[in-house]
Amino acid sequence: MTGWILVPWSYNRDNAPEGLAVEVYDGEGEPSVDLSEVVFYVVPYARPAAMRLLARMPHVRVVQVLTAGYETVLPLLPETADLYNGRGLHDASTAEHAVALMLAAQRELPRWGADQERHVWQPHFTRSLADSRVLIVGYGSIGAAIEARLRPFEVEVLRLARRPRPEAGVHGIDELHSLLPAADIVVIATPQTPQTQALVGGPELRLLPDDALVVNVGRGPVLDTGALLEQRGRVRAALDVTDPEPLPADHPLWQAPGVLITPHIAGGSATFYPRARRFVDAQLRRWVAGEPLVNRVTP
Amino acid sequence: MTGWILVPWSYNRDNAPEGLAVEVYDGEGEPSVDLSEVVFYVVPYARPAAMRLLARMPHVRVVQVLTAGYETVLPLLPETADLYNGRGLHDASTAEHAVALMLAAQRELPRWGADQERHVWQPHFTRSLADSRVLIVGYGSIGAAIEARLRPFEVEVLRLARRPRPEAGVHGIDELHSLLPAADIVVIATPQTPQTQALVGGPELRLLPDDALVVNVGRGPVLDTGALLEQRGRVRAALDVTDPEPLPADHPLWQAPGVLITPHIAGGSATFYPRARRFVDAQLRRWVAGEPLVNRVTP
Ligand SMILES: NC(=O)c1ccc[n+]([C@@H]2O[C@H](COP(=O)([O-])OP(=O)(O)OC[C@H]3O[C@@H](n4cnc5c(N)ncnc54)[C@H](OP(=O)(O)O)[C@@H]3O)[C@@H](O)[C@H]2O)c1
Ligand SMILES: NC(=O)c1ccc[n+]([C@@H]2O[C@H](COP(=O)([O-])OP(=O)(O)OC[C@H]3O[C@@H](n4cnc5c(N)ncnc54)[C@H](OP(=O)(O)O)[C@@H]3O)[C@@H](O)[C@H]2O)c1
Repeated sequence: MTGWILVPWSYNRDNAPEGLAVEVYDGEGEPSVDLSEVVFYVVPYARPAAMRLLARMPHVRVVQVLTAGYETVLPLLPETADLYNGRGLHDASTAEHAVALMLAAQRELPRWGADQERHVWQPHFTRSLADSRVLIVGYGSIGAAIEARLRPFEVEVLRLARRPRPEAGVHGIDELHSLLPAADIVVIATPQTPQTQALVGGPELRLLPDDALVVNVGRGPVLDTGALLEQRGRVRAALDVTDPEPLPADHPLWQAPGVLITPHIAGGSATFYPRARRFVDAQLRRWVAGEPLVNRVTP
Repeated sequence: MTGWILVPWSYNRDNAPEGLAVEVYDGEGEPSVDLSEVVFYVVPYARPAAMRLLARMPHVRVVQVLTAGYETVLPLLPETADLYNGRGLHDASTAEHAVALMLAAQRELPRWGADQERHVWQPHFTRSLADSRVLIVGYGSIGAAIEARLRPFEVEVLRLARRPRPEAGVHGIDELHSLLPAADIVVIATPQTPQTQALVGGPELRLLPDDALVVNVGRGPVLDTGALLEQRGRVRAALDVTDPEPLPADHPLWQAPGVLITPHIAGGSATFYPRARRFVDAQLRRWVAGEPLVNRVTP
């Protein structure tokens, strides 16, 4: 086992498997080791510049990203390397944010926030999450974590993925159009791929009932922004990801009625880091033991 | 069976048990029947004036309120009547709002709302609900419904009620002070009684760790407002009920840092009405059949 391993957080070498040469690189500035000797690179989270260092790592064998999505790293991946993603690490954080967005929209939290600003106490009865029918578009790792959290809220959950899995009650993408008219809430949790581009666009939004809510915690381009703007006032939205992203200050989406925006922070809350460390430690143990790593995304 | 039954919503007499004289009174203006002939009064929800009609109902036998709390009706209750409350009807609505408040505070939704107002995309990582220790003060009908909803969020829940129930993992009120120092989030879901007045006051708030969150969906006076204001900046709060209530426009609580306010709307969301109708229908069936009604609160 030769070559450097780069991890993005301070690392207790006493706990490290023997023989590992671990160095810390948090994504700021230049790493302290010769990049041509890096064999295992844990790409710092939410540091786009850190990804471009891959061009200077001719011998890297393992590229471990901490995100579930990996569409931006694929074009930069050296031929020598296999890519592993952070599938699962963000589930708790992302799924709880998805539920937070649903509840905020149903219970009108932005409205009460605005009233609080103006010192106004003016109650009225709101929608509820209970008794809603929620369609999860992208019933993968995060989709299932969203469902688990929704289950006690007295809602009906419908699951949809690329391929139907009737034995698990999962509808295939072919059924999207037939399921939309009965959905009160649609949650998008698919990756960004050529097939998911505008997966929820004009035709889909028009099939939704009046006042339906679209939540997006997947990737911005999966929901067609222009089509959503055309439906403003009729269909509501709560978006953690947008297209374009970041959303420019002069974009009309900011003030579209019934649209709630958070700046792509679903996956990265406090709960993420302990999970990410435990996961990387386990990957390193597998690497030293010569076992296959998990979460491989290249064939 | 003689005398009038007043219900607060349109009533399908075809479904009514035979022999019942049902009249609709929604709490606005004057009922259309002679009040001295009312025997069964379903007090309209969120209409304080409707409660005062009790003084003119000398023969009322059943007073059915639709709220869980009943501290305001007790002094008005005629001697002829038994009082029944709406325990259970608000659980889904109130418990989901409690979780909405927790998530909003942990994930900083008011902050993102303010950023959206200013068209600002400025992500940072927030706290999470996952990995928190949540202490439920008042583990009754609503407290248990809150716990059920929290369970899949990867939190640790501690239960506290008046009397300890060790076999069910419920701590007694004597243990409040010993549990507070380890709580990240405290949710208040007790009724208002002489014993719960300022149950969470200065001594209790001072025992909480820095940055802890207090959620109140019970009654305002259970949390001491002055003591909370003294802890502002150190302890956060998300309050559906306040003391005083409604909160006057010039009250300092409106702009205390880290305090989020909704105007007592936890229990009354859309989900409440279908549950309330089903419950009252079942009470009427019991009344006609001569069976004891449920949810009696007078001895
Ligand atoms: N907002 C944030 O902060 C944040 C955080 C983490 C992740 N994410 C996003 O969430 C995505 C999902 O993460 P994950 O870990 O749940 O991934 P995952 O386990 O791979 O699940 C993806 C799901 O999407 C479905 N899917 C893929 N293409 C589809 C299509 N064309 N039509 C319908 N369904 C399709 C998949 O269907 P099959 O099961 O049939 O393959 C699968 O159910 C990530 O790729 C990332 O972009 C966002
Ligand atoms: N914000 C809203 O819109 C809204 C909506 C509905 C209800 N509420 C409020 O929520 C309250 C609770 O409703 P619920 O249906 O859950 O009532 P519940 O089933 O009677 O439960 C009340 C709980 O509070 C506990 N408790 C009472 N006095 C206490 C004390 N001195 N110290 C510690 N715990 C004490 C009880 O303990 P024991 O089990 O040991 O008796 C019980 O666990 C209502 O009374 C109402 O005020 C608010």
